[in-house]
This record gives sequence, C-alpha cells and structure tokens, in this order.
Amino acid sequence: MRIGLLTSGGDCPGLNAVIRSAVLHGIKSYGDEFVGFKGGWRGLIEGDYTEITRHDVRGLAREGGTILGTSRTHPYNHPKGGPENIAKQMKRHDIDAVIAIGGEGTLAGAKRLADDGVPVVGVPKTIDNDLKATDYTFGFDTAISIATDAMDRLRTTGESHHRCMVAEVMGRHVGWIALHSGMAAGAHAILIPEQKVDLDQVCEWVEQVHSRGRSPLVVVAEGFIPEGDDEALAGKGHEADGRPRLGGIGEWLTGRIEERTGIETRNTTLGHIQRGGNPTGYDRVLATRFGMKALDLAHEKAWGHMASLRGTEIVQEDLASALDGLKAVPAERYEEAKILFGR
Amino acid sequence: MRIGLLTSGGDCPGLNAVIRSAVLHGIKSYGDEFVGFKGGWRGLIEGDYTEITRHDVRGLAREGGTILGTSRTHPYNHPKGGPENIAKQMKRHDIDAVIAIGGEGTLAGAKRLADDGVPVVGVPKTIDNDLKATDYTFGFDTAISIATDAMDRLRTTGESHHRCMVAEVMGRHVGWIALHSGMAAGAHAILIPEQKVDLDQVCEWVEQVHSRGRSPLVVVAEGFIPEGDDEALAGKGHEADGRPRLGGIGEWLTGRIEERTGIETRNTTLGHIQRGGNPTGYDRVLATRFGMKALDLAHEKAWGHMASLRGTEIVQEDLASALDGLKAVPAERYEEAKILFGR
Amino acid sequence: MRIGLLTSGGDCPGLNAVIRSAVLHGIKSYGDEFVGFKGGWRGLIEGDYTEITRHDVRGLAREGGTILGTSRTHPYNHPKGGPENIAKQMKRHDIDAVIAIGGEGTLAGAKRLADDGVPVVGVPKTIDNDLKATDYTFGFDTAISIATDAMDRLRTTGESHHRCMVAEVMGRHVGWIALHSGMAAGAHAILIPEQKVDLDQVCEWVEQVHSRGRSPLVVVAEGFIPEGDDEALAGKGHEADGRPRLGGIGEWLTGRIEERTGIETRNTTLGHIQRGGNPTGYDRVLATRFGMKALDLAHEKAWGHMASLRGTEIVQEDLASALDGLKAVPAERYEEAKILFGR
Amino acid sequence: MRIGLLTSGGDCPGLNAVIRSAVLHGIKSYGDEFVGFKGGWRGLIEGDYTEITRHDVRGLAREGGTILGTSRTHPYNHPKGGPENIAKQMKRHDIDAVIAIGGEGTLAGAKRLADDGVPVVGVPKTIDNDLKATDYTFGFDTAISIATDAMDRLRTTGESHHRCMVAEVMGRHVGWIALHSGMAAGAHAILIPEQKVDLDQVCEWVEQVHSRGRSPLVVVAEGFIPEGDDEALAGKGHEADGRPRLGGIGEWLTGRIEERTGIETRNTTLGHIQRGGNPTGYDRVLATRFGMKALDLAHEKAWGHMASLRGTEIVQEDLASALDGLKAVPAERYEEAKILFGR
Repeated sequence: MRIGLLTSGGDCPGLNAVIRSAVLHGIKSYGDEFVGFKGGWRGLIEGDYTEITRHDVRGLAREGGTILGTSRTHPYNHPKGGPENIAKQMKRHDIDAVIAIGGEGTLAGAKRLADDGVPVVGVPKTIDNDLKATDYTFGFDTAISIATDAMDRLRTTGESHHRCMVAEVMGRHVGWIALHSGMAAGAHAILIPEQKVDLDQVCEWVEQVHSRGRSPLVVVAEGFIPEGDDEALAGKGHEADGRPRLGGIGEWLTGRIEERTGIETRNTTLGHIQRGGNPTGYDRVLATRFGMKALDLAHEKAWGHMASLRGTEIVQEDLASALDGLKAVPAERYEEAKILFGR
Repeated sequence: MRIGLLTSGGDCPGLNAVIRSAVLHGIKSYGDEFVGFKGGWRGLIEGDYTEITRHDVRGLAREGGTILGTSRTHPYNHPKGGPENIAKQMKRHDIDAVIAIGGEGTLAGAKRLADDGVPVVGVPKTIDNDLKATDYTFGFDTAISIATDAMDRLRTTGESHHRCMVAEVMGRHVGWIALHSGMAAGAHAILIPEQKVDLDQVCEWVEQVHSRGRSPLVVVAEGFIPEGDDEALAGKGHEADGRPRLGGIGEWLTGRIEERTGIETRNTTLGHIQRGGNPTGYDRVLATRFGMKALDLAHEKAWGHMASLRGTEIVQEDLASALDGLKAVPAERYEEAKILFGR
Repeated sequence: MRIGLLTSGGDCPGLNAVIRSAVLHGIKSYGDEFVGFKGGWRGLIEGDYTEITRHDVRGLAREGGTILGTSRTHPYNHPKGGPENIAKQMKRHDIDAVIAIGGEGTLAGAKRLADDGVPVVGVPKTIDNDLKATDYTFGFDTAISIATDAMDRLRTTGESHHRCMVAEVMGRHVGWIALHSGMAAGAHAILIPEQKVDLDQVCEWVEQVHSRGRSPLVVVAEGFIPEGDDEALAGKGHEADGRPRLGGIGEWLTGRIEERTGIETRNTTLGHIQRGGNPTGYDRVLATRFGMKALDLAHEKAWGHMASLRGTEIVQEDLASALDGLKAVPAERYEEAKILFGR
Repeated sequence: MRIGLLTSGGDCPGLNAVIRSAVLHGIKSYGDEFVGFKGGWRGLIEGDYTEITRHDVRGLAREGGTILGTSRTHPYNHPKGGPENIAKQMKRHDIDAVIAIGGEGTLAGAKRLADDGVPVVGVPKTIDNDLKATDYTFGFDTAISIATDAMDRLRTTGESHHRCMVAEVMGRHVGWIALHSGMAAGAHAILIPEQKVDLDQVCEWVEQVHSRGRSPLVVVAEGFIPEGDDEALAGKGHEADGRPRLGGIGEWLTGRIEERTGIETRNTTLGHIQRGGNPTGYDRVLATRFGMKALDLAHEKAWGHMASLRGTEIVQEDLASALDGLKAVPAERYEEAKILFGR
C-alpha cells in the first residue's frame, strides 16, 4: 500500500514516534510506501506532501513535535475540502489510505470522511486525556512528568518563603493533568473544570496547611471556574483561538487567596512547556504501539476505526466512540484526590 | 484502627508514596493511628517499630526509597516468625492490622498469614512488572524512564563511534523493563528471558543496522539466556542472593558480538540506578492510589487481599491471584516489538 | 566556636548545601557548634533560632530551598535591628560569629554590621549572577539548566506549528540568565536589560528565521525595555515588591511581534520554577565549597569578608567589593551572542 | 575562507555545539564555507569529507555526539598521514584551515602539524577535565550532572537496605569527575588516581558512616589504585585500548569492603552513559563560545593555538601549553573534599 500520514491539532510529545513506527512496520512487514502530508488536513486537501523513507524516521522515537507540521485545518471547512476533493487528491497521488493522528476534532473529521467513503484510520492524540475511546493517549504522561517536576521546584521555594504557591496547568475542559500532577506533587488543593469549588473552601484548605507551618500548593486547571464567581471571572480565561489571555485563572486565584488569607501567594502558569519536548518512555511505548496498530488497521481496511489502549492491550475502536463527549474526571476520582487536600 | 506498615524486598521508587497516602487517608478519614515496622517482616516479628505521624510523611510523595527500611526476612522462615508469634506481637503492641508492601515473596507471606488468621492486606511492589494480579506496579515506570534516558545517551556515543552499544537492564525472570525501555529507545534488538534467540540472529540484526551506517543498540535483560549457549554462560548470571556476578550477560554478549561481527561493541550495565531515586509522576499517582486503597481494605477487613490496577481503576484482588506464577512477556508483545528489530 | 547561620533574600538552589558543608566542616575540623536563625536577619534580630546538629544537615547537598527559611528583613531597617541589638542578641545566646548567606542587600547589611563591630562573614547568593565580587554564584547554573530545558521543549512546539515562541526568564536588572539559556537553546534573539534593541530589529530577526522555514525562539529577560517604547510599556514590569504584574514583557512582546509580523506567536513566562528545586551538580559543588570557605573565614576572624569564586579557586573578597554596583552583561558578551541571532 | 572541521577521540557532549557555532559564525561574519572531515584525522588524511551548510547545523546546540563521527586515528601514525600529505589534501580540496576538536592526543597532533606548516587551530575536548590549558572543557559538566543524578538514586537504595553503595565513574588518570560528582552527591569517600588511600582507611570511613545508621556512598574513579594493593589489582583495570575489563576497580573494591566490614555492599559502574546524550546548558554555552573563538583564531591565522576558558573569558592559548602533562586534582582540592568524608 501507499499510505499517507498526517498530524493535526495541538503539538503533543509522541507524534513522531507514531509516524516512525507506522512507517517502519509498513516497510518491513508489508513493503508499504509512505507520504507525509504537511500541516495536517491542509496538506492532504492541497496535495502538499513529501515521501517518507526509512531514513526520514531515524531516531524519531525520542523526538518531540512532528516532522510533518500540524495545523487546525478541518477537512470539511476548508474551501477545497470535503470527501470528493480528498478522494480525488488521493487518487491523483496514488495514495491508498490515510492515517490521521489527532484529537477530537481530527478524529471527528476522519470519521465523517470514512463514512463518506474515504479510506481513513485514526490515532488518538491529546495531552489532556479527554477521549473516552482510550484509557490513555501519548503526551499525557509527558505533560504529567513536566508539571510534576515544575511543582517539585515550586514547593521548595514555597517552603523557603512560607508562601502559598499556585500552579496553573493545561486543561480547558477536563482536569486530568491537574488531578494527576497535583496528586504526584502532593498538592493541598486541586481545582478542575468538572468540579465547582468556592473560594472559601480553597482558602480554608490553604489556611489549614499554612497554620501547620507548611507552604500550601494549589494546582488549578486553566478551565476551572470557582463557584459563585462567574462574574468576577468574566473576561478571564481564553481567547477564541485557545490562547490564554493575560492573567488566566492562576493569576486571578493568586490574587484572591492573598487578599482573603493574607498569606503571600505566587502564581506560575506552566504553559506551552507542557506539550513540547522529548516524550517520556511511557509515551514513546504507547505512541509506537499506536502507530503499528493504525498500520494494521489500514491493511485490514478498518476504515473509520482507530487504535486505542484498554488496560495493557492495544485494541481497535470505532471512531464514533471517540466522539461521544469528553472524558471528564469522574466524581469518585476527585473524591479520592480530595482526601489529601487541606490540613 | 491502629495499623502497622511494612516494606519488604528490593528497593522500589514509590514505597514512600504508599506509606504517605495510607497514613494521611487513615488519619483524616478514619482517625487511625500508624506504626512503621523497621526492616520489613523482621520489624513486625521482633516488635521493632516506630509511631508514624502526619509530620513523618510530609513531602514523601516524591522521595525514593522507604523510610521504614526493607529486608528479605520471610515471616515464616525467621526463627521467631509464624502466625502465632506475629499475632502475639500485634496484640502486645495493640496493632489491629498490617499493610504489607512488597513483591511476590512478601505477598505470599501475607497471604499465608491472612489464611492463618492474621489481619493483613497487601500492596504489590515490583519494578519488574512481574505480577499477574495487577496491570502495573509503581517503580516500573521509573525504571523505564531511567533506562530510556540512559539508552538515549548511549545512542549518541554509539553513533559518534559507529559502535554497537549493549545495555543490560534488570529483569532476571521477565523482560518487561527490556521490552519497554528498548522500544522507547528504538533498540535494534531486545533480548528477554522469555524468548530464546540465538547469537546468529542477534548478530544478523546488528549487522543489518551497521551496514546501513547506523549504530546498533542491543538491550538485554539480565536473565536472558542465548539459545544453545547454556554452557558458554555457565557460571554467569547471578549469585544466590541476587547480586550480579562480575561480567553478567551484557558483558558476555558484548564480547560475542564483537568477536563474530568485528564491529566495535561496548556494554553498559545499568544496575542499581534503575531502582532508586525519585519516582516518576506516573508512579507517584499509582503508589498514592494503592496506599489509599490498602487502607480501605484494612477498614473493610478484606484480609488476604491487595490493591491492584486494572485499566484505570484501582480494584481489590485476592492475594492468591498475585502468586499464580510470574507475569511473563506474552509472545505477541515480543512479536510486536520484533517488528522494529534489525535493519 | 558557636556560629549562627542565616539565609536571606529570594530562594536559591544551593542554600542548603552551604549550610550543610559549613556545619560538617565546623563540627569535624574545629569542634564548632551551630545555630540557624529563622527567616534571615529577622531570626537573628529577634533571637529566633534553633540548634543545628549533624543530623539536621543530612542529605542536604541535593535539596533545594533553605531549611532556615528566608525573608527580606534588613538588619538596620527592622525596629529592633542595628549593630547594638544584634551584638546583644549574639552575646545573650553565646554566638561568636554569623555567616550570612544572601544577595546584594544581605551582603550590604553584613558589611555594615562588620564595620560596626559585629563578627559577620558572608556567602554570596544570587540566581541572577549579578555580583561583581565573584565569577559565579550557586543557583545560576540551576536556573540556566531549567530555562534551557524549558526552551528545548518550546522549540519543538514552535517547529510543529511554525510559530514564533517567546520565553520570558528572570533578570530584572541584568540579563545573564537570558544570555546563557538563550545561547544554550539556540535562541534567535536574546533581549536583556543592558541592551536597548528596538522592535523593528526584533521583528527583523524573527522574520529572517521564519522565512527560512524555521520557528523563531525569542528569549527576553523580565527587565528588558524595548528602545523607544517606554511609553507602551508604562505600567508593565513589576510591582514594588518584585512580583511580576499581569502581563510582563514577554506577553507584551508576543503581542507586538504577532501584530507586526503576522506570525503566530506565543509567550511562556518561566517564573518561579527557575529558582526552586534540586541544584545541579555544578551548583552543589560551588555551594559546598563556599560553605567551607565561609567557615574558615569565621575562624580567621575575617569579618566583613565573603567567599568568592575566581577561575577555579575559592578565594576571599572584601564584602565592599560585592556592593560596587551590579555585574551587568558586558557589551562584548552581547555582541558575541548576537552573532547567532536572526537569519 | 574554506574551513575544515574534525572531531577526534572519545565522544563528548558539546561537540555538535562547537561545530554549529563555528559554522554559523563563519557564514554570517565572514562568508566562510565549511567542510566536515569524517571520522577525525582519518577523514582529513583520506580526503573523506562532506560540505556543511547552515541547514546541516540546525538544532545542533542541544544534540550530543558529533555529526562528523570520530576515531582515534593519529595524523602522524596513519600510513598516509604526515604534514605533506595533509597539506596536499587541503590544497586539492581547496581548504584554507582546519579546526581540530579533540583531547590531548588530538591537540598534540594539531600542534605538530601547525609547527610543520599546516594551518590548524584547536578546540580542547575532554570529559575528564584533564587539560592544563583551560579551566574547564565542555562535556565535563554533563558528566558531573549524569553521575550526580545516578548517585542520588543509589543513595536512596542504599538507605532503604542499609547498604554501602560504590559508584565507579570515569577518570583513568585524573579524578575530577569523581571529585565533583562525589562532592555534589555528598559521598562519604572519594577515591582518585592522584591520591593513594589504603583499604583500611576506606573501610574506616565506611564503618563510621554505617555506625551512625547511614548508608555509605563510595565514589571511585576507574583509575584509582589502592595503596599497597597493586598485586591484588594486577590484571584489573583496563585493556590496552581503553575498554574496561570485566570487573573494574568498583567491583574489586565492593568485594573488599564487604569482606572486611561485613556490610552489604553493591557496585554500580556508570560507564558510557557519562559521555553521551544532550549536553547541559553550561556545556552548550562553553562549546558555543569555543566554536566561535576557534573560528576567529583561524581568521587571525593563529595556527597552533586553541580556544580556552580562563575565569569567565574565552582566551587563546598556545597548543603547546595544552600538552604539558595532565591537569591532576591538586592535593588541596582533595583535602578540601576529604573534610566531608567518613562520619
């Protein structure tokens, strides 16, 4: 087969490992040829691609980012998009199948294309861990690793100054990064979009910890909204295009905690470092296995399906199941974490 | 309740995180008291313990090792061991339950004690990932992380000198560390105890890679035995007490590869650095959740049971299931990895 | 001797290593006793201290922060401060000498006290590397290490999205952190307080890099002021107490670059993670040697002097020399770095 | 100018950063052209080289190893070597100058060639820090960083098991890596080639630490020879080609300590991971500055000279001064470290 690869959506450590393993598996096991579309769906729609040889994927398991580039182009919204044009492009360039690596939006596009007869399979990608169709995705573990390391550093400074430290992590709609990195770092409060918590409660946790002579660490997901403070937060949050506005929730919260408790408080917004750089060993293994599975799916003509992790196994899932709403942090996982808050 | 904790067997990143979360959960949710037995079962048998307060577990989520110390004492083999003495010790010191954190041997002891009426629950611990009763254990991810990082370093040196690099990792009976770290590092051959591979095959992989102008990376688990070479290996391997002998399999293999292929080859035996130091975020989360679950099991009087990871959930397993033979790397996982060998 | 230690000013990796080595050296070589003043000069002024034994400094070489806590109290501005009260406190508690570990302000206070007859020696501390009296201080290398690692991550994301990435690092008055971390990360522009650069120049560098198909990385010290834009920046920068205001120079610059060049641009403000956590090996060695030297200075009654690094040697410097203005980045070092900008 | 670059001797983190900065500086400041000789002097002697463009050095500041490859070929010992042939090769390929990056042997060769009229300048490279002609070389800080991190891990395992841990680090002739990494990790004994220490003394230090309930950490350079034990060590050490024999000094010492003290003792030989992988920020800055200086030296026709670090400045040194014997650890530096041994 002659297979086209594309990476779409936000950057994520492990994309290159997927590309590498799909290509190596295809060349070795099936004698496949590969092309890489540049800048996600745009490359496919515009026929902008490059051949990918074994040499091109050399050493990629450990490299962050994507050699193909990425964009937020949607296969149906682009002026030249849609299944007919895409099928035409594939035919013109003699491409038998597309492996689309991306998040919810990408997989939704892939599903719709497959339903419209385009031979597409998917690989799920999200550092946010917000897809129901898989236990975990690559990129999430790297984000946890980076955030945990950063919080370990914040804690020593907090203790030296007897300050409260606030760390704002990624997670506009779900709180998985905050939950796991906060638990790993021993945070005294974790605030996530799925759970309303009011400022009084946050300040109570902070004060409990401070009164024991310790320095409170508060982890907040960028999408958290404090209960009863929607107004205060109006105009906060994010731009339409997903870019954080000046002074996100971390900054806002820092001011409120200091104001109410009188405890010196400092914010750090971890930002883009959470989604770049070399993937962890965990993410490289997962991405490598996903890449091989996606290649197998293409050979099985399992269009409209994607690779997925269930327990320790890589299985196949219908892309439809990836699109059935975001995977929120369940209430019981938050309750579990909450046991360690405060005091 | 008044609960005793013990850590037993080889060191493992995450032990302190288990201790911390069990203690914090117990104090906060149930008003429990805690003691820590020193040096594993020995401390329990000899009544050598210390009280553990909230202050003692402060900051422990990130610390490697175990504040309780560990040993290889077995609860039945110790002269003063056995269920009656242990029950007596618990009564004397007013201890209602024991949480035993350890590997296969420890859990077997815990199971037998529970069967003999001692109130014990377990937490599985093995950096080797060799327990069937849980998807993963804490410590494994940290070992992968350390080994992967080391191999990334070996590769640049291999490339600079056009050498073959051999990395010997832990895994006397199972090859999980070799499999995952080798896949993460893009190894060209992975050799594990579960799979017989002969030297001709290894050298063929090495030569394929070298002939493409690249530097082969061979990852070998300490317990790997090359097919047909038992004799050559006689006297190699490990001492009765588990200590590696001078010149383990990595050294041996390095000599053979160089001899047969004429390619300059170097060995690095990663050794004890794989099991020490700060746990990864992944392992901290898992250990923290295990600690809380074990505490709940004690309150549920689920004696003879242990915490276990299944998919993304922490569940309870009968300790008997932990003892049903080692969890070997399945043939299909090795075949999956093998796709990327050689060439 | 009975010696008091204090740490003062902002947190800095290596403070604990200084404390440890001074204490171990004193106990072993001279039979000294040690106390630690809590919260910097405040502890000395108020007689708030604790005995420090060998046990207390165990394992401290690798720990970030300071076990003594720190504050910004000045020995002369505190209501009960001044040389007479301090001498009285020292006499009351039988303390023969003080080792003051801190930055410019701390060392100025130490100098003045020594001139007023109080037996004080100093250890220089600044992550900013802004002291003329020593080649380097501990904490600086750790800050470079953290910032470089963060920028490595930002670069992969920049490349994946063909974005310009801006990284704001510490350095309100001097640009050493920006200079070294930017050079280490291969930045395409480095902007520091010592050098006026106008926006046109910055945008030209950014466009040169972007036009070659690469993703520009711009590193900016928090204290940089673009030429001719003082007005635009009015109200930006920092609060009186040193806390960054919402939207520092990194945010501001990001907006301007995007506006003018049309290239998608993102800011990351590294913030407090640059000054916390475990010190690098380099900083541990330097801090350890400083601690031992300061102890020797106390025994030599070299009041008003401090430990200093010159080349590879630890020497003694008059505290007066530490206070002779900030050590700015010399023009020739900036010119050297500039060779690699743009294009 | 048209300038040839070569890297020679053992691998070292920072080689690629030297190449990159020399090339970028040359292209931008002087309009130079560059070629890279493959495999050190061999490439020069045999005319085996490749053009190096700006594109080829992209992203190299952070990459370990050398894109040019390396070897131990000597410019005078190779059958086709010697100044006449080399000059002829340079003329044939229109090369005006050579920048040779390497250790003592390489720089000796460069000096002799320069004396014989070949236009060569040098860049010092050694992870061992054994060159008198410069305060530090790139690669050393990375080695310290890796070794320190490994020892931090060994310590937690030592403490958990109440064992003595031995770490063997690089340093066949000088003990700088052992000295700095041991001091950084808080080692209880550091053993280096420059200082004779007998086993009784080592065991006394180990026992002092163990008797306080702590776990001794012993750091030994591979070239250390215990006093009075030359016989016992006969046959130990290294092969003629520099490869460690089975069971180096670390293994040997581990056996002796356990034998004499009865304390369970374990060895870890860090090996090749010390010289591979991404350089630290410190080493990237130093290597970058060295590369730019070497390029300037070529334009100044300062043949027979090399870049050198003195304090914080990059200066020029005669290559002769690089060859005036190894830079050993001075006795006073060992005495300084020794203060923290034992107890």
